[in-house]
Amino acid sequence: MMTMLRIGLVGLGRLGKIHAEILSGQISNVDLVAVCTLDDKEKSWAVSKLGLSATCCFSDFEKMLDEAKLDAVVLASPSSYHFNQTYLALSLGIHVFCEKPLAVKEEKIQNLFDILNTNSGLVCQVGFMRRFDPVYMKAKEKIVNGDIGEIILFRGYSLDPISEIHNFLKFLPSSSGQFLDMAVHDIDMANWLIDAFPKTIYSCCNSFSFREFEEFGEGDNVTSLMQYENGSMAFIMAGRTAQHGYHIETEIIGTKGTIRIGSVPSPHQLEILDGSGVRRECYTDFADRFYLAFQNELVAFIKNIHEDEAPKCGIHEAYKATLIALKATESLKEKTLIKL
Amino acid sequence: MMTMLRIGLVGLGRLGKIHAEILSGQISNVDLVAVCTLDDKEKSWAVSKLGLSATCCFSDFEKMLDEAKLDAVVLASPSSYHFNQTYLALSLGIHVFCEKPLAVKEEKIQNLFDILNTNSGLVCQVGFMRRFDPVYMKAKEKIVNGDIGEIILFRGYSLDPISEIHNFLKFLPSSSGQFLDMAVHDIDMANWLIDAFPKTIYSCCNSFSFREFEEFGEGDNVTSLMQYENGSMAFIMAGRTAQHGYHIETEIIGTKGTIRIGSVPSPHQLEILDGSGVRRECYTDFADRFYLAFQNELVAFIKNIHEDEAPKCGIHEAYKATLIALKATESLKEKTLIKL
Amino acid sequence: MMTMLRIGLVGLGRLGKIHAEILSGQISNVDLVAVCTLDDKEKSWAVSKLGLSATCCFSDFEKMLDEAKLDAVVLASPSSYHFNQTYLALSLGIHVFCEKPLAVKEEKIQNLFDILNTNSGLVCQVGFMRRFDPVYMKAKEKIVNGDIGEIILFRGYSLDPISEIHNFLKFLPSSSGQFLDMAVHDIDMANWLIDAFPKTIYSCCNSFSFREFEEFGEGDNVTSLMQYENGSMAFIMAGRTAQHGYHIETEIIGTKGTIRIGSVPSPHQLEILDGSGVRRECYTDFADRFYLAFQNELVAFIKNIHEDEAPKCGIHEAYKATLIALKATESLKEKTLIKL
Amino acid sequence: MMTMLRIGLVGLGRLGKIHAEILSGQISNVDLVAVCTLDDKEKSWAVSKLGLSATCCFSDFEKMLDEAKLDAVVLASPSSYHFNQTYLALSLGIHVFCEKPLAVKEEKIQNLFDILNTNSGLVCQVGFMRRFDPVYMKAKEKIVNGDIGEIILFRGYSLDPISEIHNFLKFLPSSSGQFLDMAVHDIDMANWLIDAFPKTIYSCCNSFSFREFEEFGEGDNVTSLMQYENGSMAFIMAGRTAQHGYHIETEIIGTKGTIRIGSVPSPHQLEILDGSGVRRECYTDFADRFYLAFQNELVAFIKNIHEDEAPKCGIHEAYKATLIALKATESLKEKTLIKL
Ligand SMILES: NC(=O)c1ccc[n+]([C@@H]2O[C@H](COP(=O)([O-])OP(=O)(O)OC[C@H]3O[C@@H](n4cnc5c(N)ncnc54)[C@H](O)[C@@H]3O)[C@@H](O)[C@H]2O)c1
Ligand SMILES: NC(=O)c1ccc[n+]([C@@H]2O[C@H](COP(=O)([O-])OP(=O)(O)OC[C@H]3O[C@@H](n4cnc5c(N)ncnc54)[C@H](O)[C@@H]3O)[C@@H](O)[C@H]2O)c1
Ligand SMILES: NC(=O)c1ccc[n+]([C@@H]2O[C@H](COP(=O)([O-])OP(=O)(O)OC[C@H]3O[C@@H](n4cnc5c(N)ncnc54)[C@H](O)[C@@H]3O)[C@@H](O)[C@H]2O)c1
Ligand SMILES: NC(=O)c1ccc[n+]([C@@H]2O[C@H](COP(=O)([O-])OP(=O)(O)OC[C@H]3O[C@@H](n4cnc5c(N)ncnc54)[C@H](O)[C@@H]3O)[C@@H](O)[C@H]2O)c1
Repeated sequence: MMTMLRIGLVGLGRLGKIHAEILSGQISNVDLVAVCTLDDKEKSWAVSKLGLSATCCFSDFEKMLDEAKLDAVVLASPSSYHFNQTYLALSLGIHVFCEKPLAVKEEKIQNLFDILNTNSGLVCQVGFMRRFDPVYMKAKEKIVNGDIGEIILFRGYSLDPISEIHNFLKFLPSSSGQFLDMAVHDIDMANWLIDAFPKTIYSCCNSFSFREFEEFGEGDNVTSLMQYENGSMAFIMAGRTAQHGYHIETEIIGTKGTIRIGSVPSPHQLEILDGSGVRRECYTDFADRFYLAFQNELVAFIKNIHEDEAPKCGIHEAYKATLIALKATESLKEKTLIKL
Repeated sequence: MMTMLRIGLVGLGRLGKIHAEILSGQISNVDLVAVCTLDDKEKSWAVSKLGLSATCCFSDFEKMLDEAKLDAVVLASPSSYHFNQTYLALSLGIHVFCEKPLAVKEEKIQNLFDILNTNSGLVCQVGFMRRFDPVYMKAKEKIVNGDIGEIILFRGYSLDPISEIHNFLKFLPSSSGQFLDMAVHDIDMANWLIDAFPKTIYSCCNSFSFREFEEFGEGDNVTSLMQYENGSMAFIMAGRTAQHGYHIETEIIGTKGTIRIGSVPSPHQLEILDGSGVRRECYTDFADRFYLAFQNELVAFIKNIHEDEAPKCGIHEAYKATLIALKATESLKEKTLIKL
Repeated sequence: MMTMLRIGLVGLGRLGKIHAEILSGQISNVDLVAVCTLDDKEKSWAVSKLGLSATCCFSDFEKMLDEAKLDAVVLASPSSYHFNQTYLALSLGIHVFCEKPLAVKEEKIQNLFDILNTNSGLVCQVGFMRRFDPVYMKAKEKIVNGDIGEIILFRGYSLDPISEIHNFLKFLPSSSGQFLDMAVHDIDMANWLIDAFPKTIYSCCNSFSFREFEEFGEGDNVTSLMQYENGSMAFIMAGRTAQHGYHIETEIIGTKGTIRIGSVPSPHQLEILDGSGVRRECYTDFADRFYLAFQNELVAFIKNIHEDEAPKCGIHEAYKATLIALKATESLKEKTLIKL
Repeated sequence: MMTMLRIGLVGLGRLGKIHAEILSGQISNVDLVAVCTLDDKEKSWAVSKLGLSATCCFSDFEKMLDEAKLDAVVLASPSSYHFNQTYLALSLGIHVFCEKPLAVKEEKIQNLFDILNTNSGLVCQVGFMRRFDPVYMKAKEKIVNGDIGEIILFRGYSLDPISEIHNFLKFLPSSSGQFLDMAVHDIDMANWLIDAFPKTIYSCCNSFSFREFEEFGEGDNVTSLMQYENGSMAFIMAGRTAQHGYHIETEIIGTKGTIRIGSVPSPHQLEILDGSGVRRECYTDFADRFYLAFQNELVAFIKNIHEDEAPKCGIHEAYKATLIALKATESLKEKTLIKL
């Protein structure tokens, strides 16, 4: 019989709560034994909803690692902590599931590779959950199968609903930019589906709705055009002002056919005919769109640990996506074409 | 070179104006030389917009036939006049294009057949313009070609926008009912596409929005389920309360495939993403949806006369559709199953 | 803490396996302790996949009830056994989840009501899983909220893919007809959404592809037009010859708006552009379309037992749907209009 | 009454024939009195289909101008002749309708401005027919009306069907590149809808299917990302390998809403459900997609001459689009970011 894995969860914010729900109710062979957050309300939530005792609710990450006898941690803390928390946990031989992005600057990621090389059983997965979304998996399968031939263009949109903007604006000064915060998912998808690495990157942006982005050399909407080593092109857009909802759309134009995902970003097969015409209501946020993917990625993480497998989406993938996001940001700020 | 045909137009109402526009500006080899209407404003319109002299604007149909030396008439008068006006014109050897329906009760349609039999060059076309709409023509072509196999079910919706209801309510007491007024187009489409005649008819209705329909044994929305002699089934709905626009939708379910027409009744390939979701704006009325079909049917009529051809959609077709519409109305009023 | 419920499952066929998977892996507070099937391969499957011991795999329903100390049974046996197995289990004070239909003729359903009346804690739920499907739930919510006003027409299609026909043809002689086998789901949806009972029913059918249906007075495609007491109309179609996949489509036309569900019956937001045009691939079968609903309905069943609640979809609902399906079948066979 | 305009048409190739049809049969107040082509078969076509006498069919453009007493010419000759033919005709005081592009290198377009300035009644229109397409006109109207706010991103795809590639490959050596041949329409649309001029341009391309494009520093698919002076961004793609048909798609993402045109490039409201799923067949070529726009643009041209109006889409607009197309081509060939 399988041993139970002892898991600690860091961060109980928007995404942390989803991971908590999944880990505590919807996965076998796992025990959520500790959480770590700075927020007292979130701790109370953990006590009442997750049934944790107060002593299992930490404020300090290192303390939790010291005391909670963890097999693995799931990191849903703010992005700027990811690299260090991952490093620390791995150093202690604790498996890590880290939310994207793995890092917000060109950190010594080499160090992570070193640890993993010397401790080959250690699993370190990064939260590119789209790789675990059934629709993207289906697309990948078709591409690998040759159904659409060579990839001419990958187009990825990640547009947050404007209804969420005020939460975001608070967080703007500490944001690592749209490419690392949002577009990194599309970058990872492009890397995964094209299966190569970019050689040129050109980015631009604007801020018609929220001029405050300009102070940071950023835009409320940003785009980037990249060309990959193998010739494939990628056009990526990330934005924060979609009126209609949470809009994640991907198109892969191939020599033999084209695949589109989410061109109407609507959660269910429900169409309404009324005074506005014929319409579909849209996803409201990432939880609405990707719940199943969040579930699937944690199932895979746990299974990888139990069965001593390498993660599907590890440090290597995260490193590449992070690097490209940093370069796309550089292109944006320097208004220049980057050659890699 | 082709001789010009002298045409008289009867009725300058909603539809008559469209026919006038087409006849006076968009067809070769034809002269619109006279109009007939009871309405003085419409006569002024004819003088100013069509360039007719006042003496070419008649109030009396017979007088126009007597005086205007017509080759052909186009009838867009109220439905109750259609049969008699058609009869009279044909008797005088004048070609007739008659708006649907040809008759509003079981008139002596046999008499029309008699005239046409003895005067084989005479063209009498009825205004089932959907037969001239490019989309329905494409569907017919695919069906004839065997692409969808045998027809299991024909489903036809004709839903008027609620914005038009007040015009209709005025006209309600003189209406010959939803099946003759509206659904007769779907009945004709079913006859045309299935290429057979019904053997059973069952109709029902309701009037949630406009109870006044009940006084006439009718509903603001009516439906009918029919089975054709060859086994094909037809489900037809006509209504007056569509919130979203003018909705003409047709589905033909076959043994090898299914064809749908207008399931999103939107006039152009324009999609809007805004606070209501992802939406398409709808057709506003029959002119918006079927302008091209109105044009095509008159082109065909003129061509048939010039080239001495039988009309694609003549008395025979009109007779069948009218009879079925009358029987569907009878089923509705008697709350009974009709066997033909 | 919650006690574990001991469950027995009857039938391990197409649907039984899905229930087994859900009961054994995806619901808390429940133990699948026994199964009953006539098929030895299915028993081996239960041993290897569900981890049951061979002694927990029964061939005889009564023996299982005698020996397995069950709190509840889930019936996924052939439809003709449903009524008797339900009756027997309830008589013994065992909670029952019974697949649709509850009965295949007008059985003494009154007896079931008697048992339930005298044993008020007993839960008897019937498998109308669409009531637990998120999309139908959303539609119900909008209707209850008044968003679309009064219901003018309910239209429900249940079309099985032609790829499944050979399985079905074997089963045809013992089938209780399309209305009880398939359309009963649409009948239940119409009852639920309209919230009334029909007063007239007229059905017809054809069998262009599989003439063998005619021997049984049935068709490979059947339709029915019903009018409900409150005036709402329902048009229902069930068929077995869809070329494109498993097609469950529902439309509710209201006085203030219209809702459509599944008009493109495609499982994911993936669109393909290739030599066939712009296309979406369709659901392949009921498991593909309704997995989540099957999960939700069992979750609700278990919760109802634990929390001593009445089921959302019990004997009363099943009785009504069954009766209507029987009457629709009668109309079909007698070629007559039924008044209730 | 209006005088008839005497028109000469240059080029009777793919597009020339469409213009001929429209000019000779579908516009009032105009006489197509002469054509000019190098091809004898096309001349025979003109004699038999257009009813021209052989002496009205010229091989030499200047000779036609000398002899045919033209009020206006329509140029559908190969692109490399456009500038000189336009210049010559305007110099002689003849109105010009010139197909896109106006020029294929940075010609002395200033000279054209000079002529037009000194001869203010002269009309020179350029064939950006999308400005006359009902759907694009509707989009423009909504944008001008402020419905979608500021334009964040314009995205334009112009994808030719692969079925046409062999025609194109013959023409490849004399092609002026994808940006001038195809994408110039999208460039003009971006200019028109954004109502500004770009400040940066970055292009790239690939040629997975037809390596022969590489010899010319081009690709069978090219893209460009531009930023306009006002901050709006434009992403443009032109390609020659679409499997599904002729695909012209435009998206305008605004701060208050988004408009999409042609995201399913299907000519009619006909949907097919068969073994490939639920699908729409696509446009086959530019004539199929833009017939109405070609008609409308010539109607406007004739009207502008008659009523002494400036053309909606003249030299100024053509100059801007041509310049941008040339710069986008330069970026492609030099693999560099262009700043304007
Ligand atoms: N995969 C996705 O689609 C997705 C979606 C949303 C967020 N995310 C990522 O998840 C992370 C969290 O995002 P969020 O929106 O939930 O943030 P949030 O601000 O809602 O929550 C942050 C949480 O981290 C805790 N925290 C802050 N500092 C900490 C520290 N030093 N040690 C431990 N805990 C600390 C806070 O108390 C809070 O519980 C981010 O890195 C974000 O990029 C990913
Ligand atoms: N094919 C279609 O889709 C379609 C659409 C709309 C109307 N129609 C048919 O067209 C006909 C006219 O409909 P409408 O909506 O234009 O009606 P309307 O009421 O707007 O116009 C009726 C016209 O007929 C004239 N008229 C009335 N009595 C007359 C008479 N005795 N002699 C001559 N003229 C007379 C009126 O002055 C008026 O000009 C109807 O039969 C209707 O069924 C068909
Ligand atoms: N809700 C839905 O959408 C849905 C879908 C499919 C089937 N169903 C219903 O589920 C039931 C089963 O359908 P299926 O397609 O899985 O059938 P199936 O033929 O695949 O399986 C029937 C199972 O019942 C067992 N069985 C037969 N006789 C039995 C008996 N006397 N006692 C105990 N077990 C017996 C068989 O061994 C087999 O395991 C039917 O009533 C059907 O109407 C409902
Ligand atoms: N607006 C659009 O969407 C669109 C579409 C297609 C073509 N075009 C433009 O139309 C033009 C013609 O394209 P096409 O595809 O019809 O080309 P084509 O090759 O089919 O036809 C060219 C025609 O020009 C004639 N010609 C060649 N040299 C000539 C000369 N020196 N003087 C007079 N006539 C000469 C040829 O005999 C032939 O009739 C091109 O400039 C193209 O860019 C525009």
